[in-house]
Amino acid sequence: MTIFLSVENKPSCASGRLFPNSRRIYVQGSRNDIQVPMREIALTPPEPSVYVYDTCGAWGDPDLTINPSEGLPRLRERWLERRAVEPTNDRPRIERFCSKVLKAKPGAGITQLAFAKAGIVTEEMEFAAIRENINRAHYMETLQSCDADVRSRLLFQHAGSSFEAQIPPYVTGEFVRKEIAAGRAVMPLNINHPEAEPMVIGRNFLTKINANIGNSALESDIHAEVEKLLWSIRWGADTVMDLSTGRDIYQTREWILRNSPVPIGTVPLYQALEKTNGNIEALSWEIYRDTLIEQAEQGVDYVTIHAGTLKDSLPLVKNRLTGIVSRGGSIMASWMKTHGKENFLYEHFDDICDILRSYDITVSLGDGLRPGSLHDACDEAQLAELKTLGKLARIAQTYDVQVMIEGPGDIPMQRVMENFVDANRYCGDAPFYTLGPLVMDCAPGFDHITSAIGASMIAWRGTAMLCYVTPKEHLGLPNKNDVREGIVAYKIAAHAADLAKGIPGAQIRDNAMSKARFEFRWEDQFNLGFDPQRARSMHDETLDKESMKSANFCSMCGPKFCSMKISQTL
Amino acid sequence: MTIFLSVENKPSCASGRLFPNSRRIYVQGSRNDIQVPMREIALTPPEPSVYVYDTCGAWGDPDLTINPSEGLPRLRERWLERRAVEPTNDRPRIERFCSKVLKAKPGAGITQLAFAKAGIVTEEMEFAAIRENINRAHYMETLQSCDADVRSRLLFQHAGSSFEAQIPPYVTGEFVRKEIAAGRAVMPLNINHPEAEPMVIGRNFLTKINANIGNSALESDIHAEVEKLLWSIRWGADTVMDLSTGRDIYQTREWILRNSPVPIGTVPLYQALEKTNGNIEALSWEIYRDTLIEQAEQGVDYVTIHAGTLKDSLPLVKNRLTGIVSRGGSIMASWMKTHGKENFLYEHFDDICDILRSYDITVSLGDGLRPGSLHDACDEAQLAELKTLGKLARIAQTYDVQVMIEGPGDIPMQRVMENFVDANRYCGDAPFYTLGPLVMDCAPGFDHITSAIGASMIAWRGTAMLCYVTPKEHLGLPNKNDVREGIVAYKIAAHAADLAKGIPGAQIRDNAMSKARFEFRWEDQFNLGFDPQRARSMHDETLDKESMKSANFCSMCGPKFCSMKISQTL
Repeated sequence: MTIFLSVENKPSCASGRLFPNSRRIYVQGSRNDIQVPMREIALTPPEPSVYVYDTCGAWGDPDLTINPSEGLPRLRERWLERRAVEPTNDRPRIERFCSKVLKAKPGAGITQLAFAKAGIVTEEMEFAAIRENINRAHYMETLQSCDADVRSRLLFQHAGSSFEAQIPPYVTGEFVRKEIAAGRAVMPLNINHPEAEPMVIGRNFLTKINANIGNSALESDIHAEVEKLLWSIRWGADTVMDLSTGRDIYQTREWILRNSPVPIGTVPLYQALEKTNGNIEALSWEIYRDTLIEQAEQGVDYVTIHAGTLKDSLPLVKNRLTGIVSRGGSIMASWMKTHGKENFLYEHFDDICDILRSYDITVSLGDGLRPGSLHDACDEAQLAELKTLGKLARIAQTYDVQVMIEGPGDIPMQRVMENFVDANRYCGDAPFYTLGPLVMDCAPGFDHITSAIGASMIAWRGTAMLCYVTPKEHLGLPNKNDVREGIVAYKIAAHAADLAKGIPGAQIRDNAMSKARFEFRWEDQFNLGFDPQRARSMHDETLDKESMKSANFCSMCGPKFCSMKISQTL
Repeated sequence: MTIFLSVENKPSCASGRLFPNSRRIYVQGSRNDIQVPMREIALTPPEPSVYVYDTCGAWGDPDLTINPSEGLPRLRERWLERRAVEPTNDRPRIERFCSKVLKAKPGAGITQLAFAKAGIVTEEMEFAAIRENINRAHYMETLQSCDADVRSRLLFQHAGSSFEAQIPPYVTGEFVRKEIAAGRAVMPLNINHPEAEPMVIGRNFLTKINANIGNSALESDIHAEVEKLLWSIRWGADTVMDLSTGRDIYQTREWILRNSPVPIGTVPLYQALEKTNGNIEALSWEIYRDTLIEQAEQGVDYVTIHAGTLKDSLPLVKNRLTGIVSRGGSIMASWMKTHGKENFLYEHFDDICDILRSYDITVSLGDGLRPGSLHDACDEAQLAELKTLGKLARIAQTYDVQVMIEGPGDIPMQRVMENFVDANRYCGDAPFYTLGPLVMDCAPGFDHITSAIGASMIAWRGTAMLCYVTPKEHLGLPNKNDVREGIVAYKIAAHAADLAKGIPGAQIRDNAMSKARFEFRWEDQFNLGFDPQRARSMHDETLDKESMKSANFCSMCGPKFCSMKISQTL
């Protein structure tokens, strides 16, 4: 099978084209082979450039030509060669991407958690650490030549209110190591996904967001999914979950992995169920295990496993308004009911950890009983499962498997924060990874907004990664535009939380924007935004002439009533 | 001048057409002439109908034919006739809408605050009280015939966390009176706007939202503004501010007022400045006073007055990144600087109150020094002004003038709530009315979302009314679509807050939606949403056949992977 991306999509992320005045830069680490990509937004001189986190990987480097049928450069290959890993040739891979498959040598601890516990700062940890600082040291250096007043304005930031977070002034590789060793952070990086750029998920780092892509039985094809991947990283998705449940799951994932610079997550149960042609009863540990290994060898970086949805908890669901809304949870519940047995993912959790540790796959403990409506929020079923997840998290960590905890879902605003507190209480410090939460049920078509409200609050409280929700939630499979709307809403939620927590430097971009606003530098305003093209086109709807790009007013108030214009004369 | 609305816009709000399966109903008060409109959403039998707050006024009644060049029926005319008001014929009105102009008889207290202090429950108070309950008693009665389990699910609501709010189980006219008497609530209802339907703004009531319309020198015409008004109330704006600064301000406002069932707010300073052809220096108390009276006689229900922006506070703005971003604030600052005098709105505040009390205009004390960027949030200038607003609020209340306090603006999430606390501390319990707040500066094109986050939190804390922000904020004058996006984002913020505060019945619509979801009643789901047409069209993008309206899955997961479908079999 051969797929070629349309020409206009191939360089989807090349900074300069889609983000005007932006340029890909690399910040070098302690060695030549640690080159951390960032995006520099150049402003009107003499304004200093602003640097932003960049999730586009090699796709964002205009000097590289990438052929999607060959995949991305294998950034981590050399680093991995020096570790206790060896090729395995258990099963054939599809031809297009024939590279060797790696596995830990018997008994070797090759996960980032194993290294962290052993006191080793890996190349990945250093890479992720540099990424977190977003070139701030350089930015501050540049400001040395500015007027002291200007400098202090551009650097001003409100004190954060970070609850128990311990956010350092600068992130170092050693700090990343300590956080991973403590189980407070994870770096989902399968040794068979060497194309991925290291990034870290944890409450003491920048808030990350995940975008879901994947086909369903009714929609989509491989081409479209790869385009959704590129589209997602272009807008800033830190990880992408491939939730395909339709045709060609294996091939779709292969194309996604080989072309993804961000960690890829999956729910292996979906593919296992495809193998039984959708027959839940026919599912078995053996089918699941084989699927998990297949995905591990392909390079999946993290897997959602619904091992905490137990037989005993099912009666607790009876009083719900919307039953079980997690796909994985409902499949396992149905299996348990049919067989009258305990969840095989729970029963075989040690076996699962043994597989995951061999490839350094992070486990994301799925909340199969998460509430799907306000009515069901924070109920006994949800809490019972959370306690089980805590137990499983501790088991995973003894296997040196990195672990995240998944959270809801649908929660009214006044109870959003307690969900983090509960997760923390029962699951130690394992990074919390929530879907929203949506703070109401009655706004179909706008759930990127209902959930961005909940997401910003729970991230402020300490949630490490937010799974996006698109406007199509509850209505259908998102298209490209929905994906963009969802991601930008979540970039907003994450940034609101980073500001609220007081992550150093978080306000730099806002200050630069405000200064550009006050000085009527329209192009700089567009370029500093999350979506320069949209900002520009909205401005141009009413004032489209080039001359208006230097006008000291806009159509909102017109020339006579512009407060900032008047204010400048004071 | 004659303007006719296009035929397709005339019945913009007729429930049945734009909100499928919706129907206008009236709940009668203690007398025949107190008929409170609501919207009934009929669901698939035997599901009980759900009732929602309706801001469409007569425009939402399919039995009425309204000619916009004649205006709406004068609902309150009879009530007003029995009060100490008299016609005044100081100045001519434009011909089209020649009705008599009313004013309080000398010395008479005819404001809702005066009545409230005197222990009188006016028709308006009763009307607004009934409105707040949204036919809940009837809904609960209907549920008596349901299965007890179903009933308890449909009525379940999470306990609120309402800070110091005192929310009653049912709102009565007497409760409204007490809240107004205490200065904790206002009902903006000019005696010259008898077309308006009474509504109440206060922290112990449903959270209200305001939409801004109005032309600028560069855009818009009267026709378009009336259409924006209808468009705004269709989506649920509780009040509308006409912020016109361009041509035909007087006529535009006349058309808006005569056709508006919701209270109309203005900033009279804008029109005063038009009278001096934009020459700030030429502004004077006399010009302002005449403008205020002109607007009072026309029927403006509330006015933003920037009387708290004082000469002494101006130096405090020097260290800001974005100076003064309030139009009114910047105009007054410029005037004070030029003349070297104190703000004439402050100096003449008693005279202003004397005018306002004669027409029962509510004063909304403008925050001329509100922050326009995170950098400037919560600074000395903002706080100094807030203290002055508190002083002015107390003066207004001694004149029996109803008063609201305007608030920011741009505030990082961790400082949003303290803004309410400060307002409360300095301004007593006067209803707080905020613009957003936006929790970041760097997302132009998405500020309806950045601000919905701040708005939901500050409303939860106690803010009574939220001024919407559209996606066009900072970029240009919003068009119709922007207005819709802004209003729906704010309906979401307000509803999130109502749920969080625990307003009785707030969760009814969500529960009904969730039940419809679990039972795959797609039409009911669309119809219960804030924008049924959008929900339907999003659903139909992938499954557009009529048969899919009863399908027990959607394109998100497809038939095999629908968790709710599987869950139903458990």
